[in-house]
Parts: sequence; C-alpha cells; structure tokens
Amino acid sequence: MNKKALAILMRARMRPNNPSKLVFSPLSNEVNQMLPNSQGNQSRPNMEHYEDENEKLNKQRSFEVVRESMHSAISMNKTEVLDTVLNDFSEGYFSLSFENRTKLLLTLAKEYDLNRTQVRELIKQYLGIQLPNGNEGQSGGVEDEAFLSTFYRIERNLRHSLKPVYEILFERLNTHPGGLMFLTILRADILSSLTEENIPSLRALDSYLKEKLCTWLSPAALELHQITWDDPASLLEKIVAYEAVHPISNLIDLKRRLGVGHRCFGYFHSAIPGEPLIFIEVALLKNVAQTIQEVLWDHPPIPESEATCALFYSISSTQPGLAGINLGKFLIKRVITLVKRDMPHISVFATLSPIPGFMQWLLSKLASQSKLAQAEDISNSSTDGFGLTFYENLLEPEEEKALIDSSGDLAAGENGMEIMLNLLTPTTHEWANSAKLLSALRPPLLRLCARYLLQEKKRGKALDSVANFHLQNGAMVQRINWMADRSEKGLCQSAGIMVNYVYRPENIEEYAQSYFSTGHIHSSYDVRRYLS
Amino acid sequence: MNKKALAILMRARMRPNNPSKLVFSPLSNEVNQMLPNSQGNQSRPNMEHYEDENEKLNKQRSFEVVRESMHSAISMNKTEVLDTVLNDFSEGYFSLSFENRTKLLLTLAKEYDLNRTQVRELIKQYLGIQLPNGNEGQSGGVEDEAFLSTFYRIERNLRHSLKPVYEILFERLNTHPGGLMFLTILRADILSSLTEENIPSLRALDSYLKEKLCTWLSPAALELHQITWDDPASLLEKIVAYEAVHPISNLIDLKRRLGVGHRCFGYFHSAIPGEPLIFIEVALLKNVAQTIQEVLWDHPPIPESEATCALFYSISSTQPGLAGINLGKFLIKRVITLVKRDMPHISVFATLSPIPGFMQWLLSKLASQSKLAQAEDISNSSTDGFGLTFYENLLEPEEEKALIDSSGDLAAGENGMEIMLNLLTPTTHEWANSAKLLSALRPPLLRLCARYLLQEKKRGKALDSVANFHLQNGAMVQRINWMADRSEKGLCQSAGIMVNYVYRPENIEEYAQSYFSTGHIHSSYDVRRYLS
Repeated sequence: MNKKALAILMRARMRPNNPSKLVFSPLSNEVNQMLPNSQGNQSRPNMEHYEDENEKLNKQRSFEVVRESMHSAISMNKTEVLDTVLNDFSEGYFSLSFENRTKLLLTLAKEYDLNRTQVRELIKQYLGIQLPNGNEGQSGGVEDEAFLSTFYRIERNLRHSLKPVYEILFERLNTHPGGLMFLTILRADILSSLTEENIPSLRALDSYLKEKLCTWLSPAALELHQITWDDPASLLEKIVAYEAVHPISNLIDLKRRLGVGHRCFGYFHSAIPGEPLIFIEVALLKNVAQTIQEVLWDHPPIPESEATCALFYSISSTQPGLAGINLGKFLIKRVITLVKRDMPHISVFATLSPIPGFMQWLLSKLASQSKLAQAEDISNSSTDGFGLTFYENLLEPEEEKALIDSSGDLAAGENGMEIMLNLLTPTTHEWANSAKLLSALRPPLLRLCARYLLQEKKRGKALDSVANFHLQNGAMVQRINWMADRSEKGLCQSAGIMVNYVYRPENIEEYAQSYFSTGHIHSSYDVRRYLS
Repeated sequence: MNKKALAILMRARMRPNNPSKLVFSPLSNEVNQMLPNSQGNQSRPNMEHYEDENEKLNKQRSFEVVRESMHSAISMNKTEVLDTVLNDFSEGYFSLSFENRTKLLLTLAKEYDLNRTQVRELIKQYLGIQLPNGNEGQSGGVEDEAFLSTFYRIERNLRHSLKPVYEILFERLNTHPGGLMFLTILRADILSSLTEENIPSLRALDSYLKEKLCTWLSPAALELHQITWDDPASLLEKIVAYEAVHPISNLIDLKRRLGVGHRCFGYFHSAIPGEPLIFIEVALLKNVAQTIQEVLWDHPPIPESEATCALFYSISSTQPGLAGINLGKFLIKRVITLVKRDMPHISVFATLSPIPGFMQWLLSKLASQSKLAQAEDISNSSTDGFGLTFYENLLEPEEEKALIDSSGDLAAGENGMEIMLNLLTPTTHEWANSAKLLSALRPPLLRLCARYLLQEKKRGKALDSVANFHLQNGAMVQRINWMADRSEKGLCQSAGIMVNYVYRPENIEEYAQSYFSTGHIHSSYDVRRYLS
C-alpha cells in the first residue's frame, strides 16, 4: 500500500456506518425512506404538494426510461452495441428509488418469463411423438435417424422454451464488464423486496437468478488469494467493512490481522476485481485457542516457525445478494492445502467459531418448557398426565437447585427454567458479571450447548448454521469453551460460549460424506461427555 | 524462462509431429489404429490370435471399469469424495482406446439423458393447471398466492426434468480441477466420432456440451494476458505447436514474434492454467503490411516509438474440442484497448489475413461454369437459349484473351474459364513461377477475390470464415494484396492473395451492428473498385 492510500485509510473511520456504500449498493427500503427528509422540503412547506407531484412524475419518467433500456437489453440483437445498452440499463437502475426498483423487478418477473403459448405448442408436438425405443443405431435405417433427430430437436426446443426470457438479460449481464456484480446487487434487491411481500413471480425470478449465480460462482471460477498489508487500501477498506464475526476496531487491529502470525485469504472472481466474495482469517498458534480474546488481543504473535496450529477464527461473506450460495465450499480445504505447503510444521487445523443460534434456541426452549411445567402442575392435579407428553425439564435437579440458590433478587420464577430464562433474557447480561451466577449457569449452559450442537437438527442437518457449514466441509466438534467471547454479541448469541471445530486433513472427505448421507456429527469425547 | 527450460526448448524439434500429444489428448481413430503395430506382434506370429482375444478381453474389462466410475461420478451424493471418483473417471477415460471412448460416450448419450416417464408425468401436471391470468398481486388473495407458487414450482420441476442427467457429470467436471480441459477433450472425441457416423443421440450430447462450454468459456471468464519470451517453456512450446496460420519454423522465429516490435496476447481460463485457448500475434509497423514475408522475415523491427500501426497477422485457436464456440469475440477489441493504452501513438489497427475459402470457391465456380459454357455451345445451336439461365462468364473478354494468349502449353481448355481452372488446379502451382502467367492471372484473380469477399454470402453472412470472423467483430475490408503469401498453403488457399481488414475503434460497434442486422459489408473504395 502506498503512503497516500495509507494516509487516507488512517483518516477514515474504520467501520463505515453503511458498508454497502462502498460499492454500487443495493437499496434497502430503510435507506431509501431516509432520503426524502434530506431534501430540505421543510423550509418550503407551501411547495410541498407541488414538489411531491413533480417528484412523482420525475420518478415515473425515470422508471419508464430504465424499463425501456431493460427491454432493449433483452430484445436487442447480439452485437457489441449491447455494451452501451447494458451500461445504460445498469446506470439507470442504480438511479431508481427502492420502490421503482421493486416495480421494475416485478415487470421483469412477470413480462419476461415464459412464452407459455409456445411451451404448450411444443408440448403438443412432443407428446405427438412416440418415445424412442433405444434401438437407435441397431435397427439403424436412415428413416430412424431422421426421426430421432426430429425427436431430439423438439425436446431441445421444449427445454429452451421453458427457460424464462429474463435468462437472456442475466446471461448478457454476466458477460458484461461489471455485470456479475450488478446481478449480485439485483438479487440483494429482490431479497429485500421479498421480505416485504412474498410475490410468487418474484420468488421464481429469485430462484432462477440464484441458480445462475451458483453456476457462475462455482469454486472453479473462484481464485484464492492471500490478502496482505501490501494490498490496495481500497481492498483493505472492504475487509474492515465486511468483517462480520469480530469487527475490526482500529488500524492496529487490521495490521495485526494481516501481520506476522496471521493470514487472511479471500475468494475472488475475475469479473469482480478487488472485491473478495468471502474471506477467512487465520492465526498461527502453539495451541488451539480457547477464547477469542487471546487470538485478537492478548498474546503477541509467536514466531511462525514455532506454530503448530492454524486457527480459523473468522469467515465473512461480503455480498447479501449471494445469500444461500455456498461460497465457503472447498475454501477451507484449499486454505489448508496452501498453509500446509508453506508451513509443513503446522499439523492442527481448527476453528474458534461462534454459535450464532444457541441462545435463540435455548430461550425459546426455556420459554415453552417453563410454560408446560406450569401446565403440568395443573394437569398433575387433574391426574390425567396428558401435559407430560411434550414436557421435559431442561435442567438436572442439581443444576436447578444451584440456580434457585444463586439467583437471589436478580431473577424470579416458578421453577429453574423460568429463573434461567429471566436471567438470560435481559440484554444487560448482568449474570455475566456475577461470579455466583456464572458458576451456577456454567454447567447447564455448557451441557445444553453440547446438546444443541450435536443433537438439534433440521431436515437431518445441524440446526446451527455455522455448525452445519463446518460439518458439511468435513470438520468435527472438538471442544466447547466457556466465556470464550465476552463481547456484547458473543453474550447475546451464545452466552459467551464458543466452539472449536477441528479439520483433520486425512478425515475431511470421510466426515463430510457421513454427515451428508446420514447426518452423523463427529465429535470428541470431551464434548460427548456433556450428554451422558 | 530459465536457462534449463531454454536448453530443453532448443534441443526440441520446433514443431512436434502431433501437437495434441502435448496435453492429455483426444484420440483420433487414425492415431489409435497406429498403436497395435508398435507392440511388436510380428515377432511372435503364433501368439497373434491368442493375444487378440486377450487384448479384447482386457479392453472390455477396462471399459467396464471406466463405465462404472462414470456411473459413480453421476449418481454419487454431492460431497468432497467426488474428487476421487472424478479423478478415477478421467484417468480411466484417457486409458481407453478410441472405439471404447466412442462406446462410452454413446452409453452416456443414451442411458443418461432424460427420465422421460417423469417428463410426461410433469407435463400432465403442468397441463392440468390453468395459465396464470397476470392478475397476481392485484386480486391478491392468499389462495392465489398458493396457487401461483404451485404453478411456478411445477414449471421449474418440468424445466429441470428436461435437463439430461449427463448435465450432472458436466457440471461436476467443470468444478473439478482439470475438469474443464477434460470436457474439452471429451467434446473433441465426440466430434471425431460424429465425423465417422451421425448418431442422433451423440449429436444431442454434443449440442448440450457445446452449450455448456459456451457458458463456461464466455468472454467474462477469460483473461487476456500478454505472452512474452519470459513465459515458461511449457507455454511457449504450445504457441509453437498451435500456431495455425503461419507455422513457426525455428527458435529465432519464435523469439522474434515475441520480441521488440511484436506482441502476442492469449485468452486464458483460470481453470486451464498455462494453456491459451486462443492467441493473437501482433506486429508494430510504420504502415499496414502488404505481404506476410515482410512481417515474418524481411524487415528488422522498427523502434516501437516510431510505429503507427498494429498489425494482427495471426489468430490461432488451440482446442479442437472448442470448435464452433466463438472465443475470438471481444478478443480483438480488448487487444486494441490494451495496445492503445500502452502506445497512444498507434492509430491504425489492421490485419493481414488469409482468405481460406477463396480457391475452393473459385475452382468449383470455374468447373461448373466452364461446363455450362460447353452446354451453352450446344444449346446455342438448338437456339432455345435455355442453357443461359445459370450461365455466367466469370471472365471479362480482355481477361479471357490474355489468358488464352499466355497459357501456351501449360494448360489447354475450350474457353478462358477452363484454361484458368487447369492452370490453378495442379498443386505444383507452376503459374506462380511464370511472369507471363502471373500478369495474365492477376486482374481476374484480384477482381474475383474482391467479389468473393464482398458479395458471396451464406445465410446473409460472408462465405469466407475469416472474413465473417472479422466483419462480425466490426472490421471493414480495406485492401487485397497480390502475391502476399507465396507459401504452399497461401497459394493453395487463395492463390497467394491476402486481405487487410481494418478496425477503426470509433466504428467497431456500428459496423458490427450493421453487418449483424443487414449483412452489410463495409469496404474501402480500393476494393469496391474491382467490382465496377
């Protein structure tokens, strides 16, 4: 990085309020709603009505212009003039308000999907032809050959007719400079629109675009690069903005994460230069770290030659428009290969990972079970025992006792679960400052966390998204760590607990395979022990 | 390039007999038929029958093994274990004989295409649902939403069911290291098989694979790199092997083409490292060259600062498996942008191009017309004039006279056209060594060449493939050059004539557009003048 870039970086706030401003950004409705207020309408209250009308007309007009350029982009002949049209369209799109973007996307979804008359015509032709009987080339006459050629042609035509017309726009944008990034933003906008209203045609548009992006952003099309302090400020600025797991607080922090004893790798696509789609931060350590504090702040880095462990402590994807597309696939495996090649003395590959869904799961479980517990008291008195069917005391007797003994004034409740719920719910996290409560909460939280990680599933896969990510990549659950992340976010997400997943290069494929086919989660004895 | 690599390159023959041996190669039937002879069977004639049987069995067995690994590669669950299976499959495939490769590709084409029972089932469901009436979101009830979701779901399912099962194999190979190259070789093998026999299912496989390769090798996925003398020998070796227009004769020639006053650019794909898919050679000159001799040999390069013209004198694509996929699209435009950025004093961008189809067209035209001319003599005597309908004397009267006067003993004939045909047909090209014949042939050959380039069309596009390539990229026909390529190949293809196409950066888009939409060919007055 040259001095000027460094100076700019040092003056800049390390974490912009709105990271999406760094790029041509998808507009969330929220951002857009803020815009009219900044126009200074209040100083001319009498003009307000007139301006509103005027503005409305302008908006309508610019919508029509963009709609027209979208139409040209789809229907034009295939030549190089397209470049201009596609530029017009994407520039026009960025100038639209959120509501006009939604309107345009709806137009695309509805008016450029399929020619269903043609589909039905081809279906009729297709059904009119007998299935080939597989004797092709054996009975082998010229007539057969002609017949089969016709059959395959109609089948191909039917297949093509079932592709929505908007595929042309997607394909053209994909081969246009900047187009892949534009499509990513388009999808982010579709997803925001869908959170407001579930419109089936828009959902169909989203699912088609997602399929396309999946193909274009396959691991084969992505390049793994190490990101260092020598990279341009424009790239490093994005690392600061996108870091989603452990925010980068200042310049020293960023430099440290790229310096001695650390590595940062990103997946890049050649059509989206200078913009990592996902990146992973690695610390080189003597032992697998138990708390994020020691990774980020406490210890000075050790000489790299003494490291035996590569710890993956943060993985961030950068594009909301790529939600649901598994970019991390193969990432860790490729990073392991790179690290092993450069530093053969490193033999342990582990993560220190958040457990983003633990508290949400636990609180809702505690709430429903403590209600059932109260219902049970009633049903007990009516002695039919029906309420017991779904009821389960999440706490062991001694855990319940310790909680009741230690909670004091801080939280009341009919039973241990309700007390625990009332202790954990407030976002002030007072329990984390009381030695007594910490020691009472530690056993049930660690035990329930192990259960959450190893046993709670959704469609046969781990309920926790980060767990699912690492398990499908072939990791195992190695250790859960108490008070490993005392930050506000860490306490909220997982009561400060973090987990080490371990990648054993020799087992990666086997573990991934068994997790995929049977949902089996490999774990260490240390973690399984909580469940016995 | 380091010294060792250079030494190896200098020892090596500059142009290998079989360029395809440089990579895992597609097997042509011809190559394969040569293999058994090299096994030394002749020394043990008695064993011959036994060995044949044995060999047959072995071949059958290895076919079954590869077929099995192909099946696993398609039907296995999506996990990382796939890597091993895909490696097994591609290695196994390379070990197969040509006939077993064809057999395997036929199995793929027939047994892994569509589940047609499922297609028909989905068509039935699809036809059972009324078309949505476009009121979605306005009448907007919950029922409508559920109905539309179902409709889009069935439509998507039908679309997916029409995708052949072999798409899975293609997609998986594409994301597998080395897989894209393997698919390219697979397609080369399909194309060789199809030249032997037109099997409809194999043609359908080819057309599907071609579609896929088109997407994966779109210009957005290709990177333009300059190739220089500093590149690895393994890459330069390929430039030597693949140069298809003007073969590279020795090391000095190669070094010259990469040295001062020259540029070489290639399109690379990140998944096929060290292997240009297409490359273009450029000479920096003071004027647009008229003969290939002066570009390749005659002149020492001028100081680059004095150059005003960038001459594209050779474009070669390297993969037979990518036939029919327009890789050159955008290539020239991007090269022009690069050259202009580095050398703003260069203002003329031209080619010196072969005219590969000219002689083939001319000879067949001369043959048919001289036959009609003889028929005309007969029909003239019967005075009904019918034979005139398709008859045209390709020669002007004075051209015909000059030919008859100068041909002497070398060629006989009933008329000028027959003499011309007999002069041009022999591959000895004696006419090119006779000053008298050269001066008699020059006017009609140049005139007919201008006609061939500007007026002879096929489906509205220039008949000549190289002309069509440059015209669709936005060039114009600037000048045709007499005796511009005196090589064997040049005389065979185009009687030694070459053409300069010119790219005017400010007109590229306009010319490409008008050629695309109306077939209009832009040309200079110099060329048009031949036709008046």
